[in-house]
Amino acid sequence: MLPGPTNVPERVMRAMFTPMINHRSDDFVELYEDAVESTKKVFQSNGEAVLLSASGTGAVEASVINLIKNGDKVIIPVNGEFSGRLAQMLEWAGANVIKLETKPGENATFDQVKAAFDNNKDVKAFYCVWNETSTGTMIKYLDKIKDLTARNDSYYVVDGVSIVGGEEFPMDKWGVDVAMTGAQKAFAAPPGISPIVVNPRAKKYMEQNPPKTMYFNLSRYFKYYEEAKHTPFTPALPLLYAYREAMNVILEEGLDKRIRRHRICSDALYSGLSAIGLTPFAKEDARSTVVVALNYLEGLEDKTFRNTLANKFRVLVAGGFGNLKGKVFRVGCMGEVHRYHVMRTISAIGSTLDMMGYKTNSVEALKIAEDKLKSL
Amino acid sequence: MLPGPTNVPERVMRAMFTPMINHRSDDFVELYEDAVESTKKVFQSNGEAVLLSASGTGAVEASVINLIKNGDKVIIPVNGEFSGRLAQMLEWAGANVIKLETKPGENATFDQVKAAFDNNKDVKAFYCVWNETSTGTMIKYLDKIKDLTARNDSYYVVDGVSIVGGEEFPMDKWGVDVAMTGAQKAFAAPPGISPIVVNPRAKKYMEQNPPKTMYFNLSRYFKYYEEAKHTPFTPALPLLYAYREAMNVILEEGLDKRIRRHRICSDALYSGLSAIGLTPFAKEDARSTVVVALNYLEGLEDKTFRNTLANKFRVLVAGGFGNLKGKVFRVGCMGEVHRYHVMRTISAIGSTLDMMGYKTNSVEALKIAEDKLKSL
Repeated sequence: MLPGPTNVPERVMRAMFTPMINHRSDDFVELYEDAVESTKKVFQSNGEAVLLSASGTGAVEASVINLIKNGDKVIIPVNGEFSGRLAQMLEWAGANVIKLETKPGENATFDQVKAAFDNNKDVKAFYCVWNETSTGTMIKYLDKIKDLTARNDSYYVVDGVSIVGGEEFPMDKWGVDVAMTGAQKAFAAPPGISPIVVNPRAKKYMEQNPPKTMYFNLSRYFKYYEEAKHTPFTPALPLLYAYREAMNVILEEGLDKRIRRHRICSDALYSGLSAIGLTPFAKEDARSTVVVALNYLEGLEDKTFRNTLANKFRVLVAGGFGNLKGKVFRVGCMGEVHRYHVMRTISAIGSTLDMMGYKTNSVEALKIAEDKLKSL
Repeated sequence: MLPGPTNVPERVMRAMFTPMINHRSDDFVELYEDAVESTKKVFQSNGEAVLLSASGTGAVEASVINLIKNGDKVIIPVNGEFSGRLAQMLEWAGANVIKLETKPGENATFDQVKAAFDNNKDVKAFYCVWNETSTGTMIKYLDKIKDLTARNDSYYVVDGVSIVGGEEFPMDKWGVDVAMTGAQKAFAAPPGISPIVVNPRAKKYMEQNPPKTMYFNLSRYFKYYEEAKHTPFTPALPLLYAYREAMNVILEEGLDKRIRRHRICSDALYSGLSAIGLTPFAKEDARSTVVVALNYLEGLEDKTFRNTLANKFRVLVAGGFGNLKGKVFRVGCMGEVHRYHVMRTISAIGSTLDMMGYKTNSVEALKIAEDKLKSL
């Protein structure tokens, strides 16, 4: 139940077990093209998809160095580790970064974003971390941003790491120019492949203004793909096989069904764990449907709790990030998550708390969760 | 018989089949520390090893952006695709690049390198591509460079992609400050992990002068490793398991034995294929012991030859790079390469040439190769 790397289905793991091939061969073209086309379906985009052999951070950095030049003005909401990192990368690229800072667990409101656009007519791009994995906080007005970016042709970039594939994301319809995720999150593939999708407008800009770097230079990827459906550098072949199979799993289930499953499971987790006596970290209107962050009860020690949960009940959850270390723990609700995982997690957390001397009402909590899961 | 990705032993492939773990857990620390320590043994270095989730090019770029600043003077021999790319990256980093250019298949002589040092007392670093995979050309005076770099404390960086693990490389003894490779070459692991080893002097410089980038910022990797033996970003877990197992394979065989095997196999390939009537592309004193590049015979069409070899005899070799496309083909002699691979490759190439109407003397060629392989 980690917020990434998540469990990988057996058939996806097995796909890795393919002998090495020449990445300049027809066999590779078939593999890569297939993976690229599936990615575009999941992002609901007719843009160009590049599958980077790197972690999600690599894809996020690629979005910065290919689009942002010295002096560009960029608006970004900041409320946690990953949005902070992204703002840092934008500053390193020389951007004039307008940070809409809020407390962790809260989001800048749409009106605050709108005001930032009103006060900065010359903004080159709006960047946002859709789902702040470090705090289980999710922005819920992505569909409304395009009216703001349209005003002066700003670019709209969504860091969708940890959430694309688990929540509704019609990228083209929402007017998003660039978006990315990491394979080890809601895609339920192993870590190491990170897709970035770029629409024609942003692609043209990147081709005309290539950065002075090699590995994350997207114009180079576009060129190799157009010429031969190759990647410029040797790709992580076993992970690409796994990634393609993970895309097959997603498309076979169907995006709508998959998103509904994530929503219902997170609803059940929030309700069940609240009934146990835990409180979600994120404000109610900002709660993520893929990462459930919870405040530790008074005196509950992080390491002891997570070790007991892992060793006695074989359930892995993650600790807090940065200065939330020891104050929250995070439950992933991603990828393969289903009825079984939700019930087992609530039960295991309840039992662990009982073992550690807290009085919980697990039976009631399980009943509440079960009820929520009925619509699955 | 590709010059990467090379065949991966079954036990290394199987290592990938491990369930996902938390990359902030003790399980991960055990895996990563083990892989790091083995890497240092293979590089024969007491420096710091970072295992990047990226292709070899990513590790090469990391060596540039962490060490080279605007205006730095750098000497680099250039004689092919990869040394050209590296020179390009150095220029992008703002370096004043002194290129010692030679024809593909030839190397700058040691005296030319020495003259460049003599004429540029203020040189900050010497970079070289040890084994130019695109042409099967290898520099053979790496052990002598340290006398030159020592003169004014220049840094010495070896791009060892495709050769480390297949040739003798006592990094510390040779005074190399930074070196890297890709897992899919002589290490016989799947592509996607690229180790970079940095000695204390270069590490200190990188920590004191971190680049304004995220994913390839080595000071960040040093910090995470020192604090918790973690990586800053989610690593490609299945590939790390495979990589560690590949390191075990290497250390079990023993470096000396492994290097001897590579040398004997390449000697047998050069001799056998020459007896067939093919001529090596690289000049005799510059021939690589891990990539054997051969000129096509007059009229021999690249695609037809390689397709026949692949489809009729199940032997994969690679074509030429850039403007050598159609003019040479390349046989990898890396990783698992042994008696069996050499004999089968010579036999298959001979038969393919026969099928395509060339008169070859395969029997004689096989006898010559067999003779060379006797010392294995």
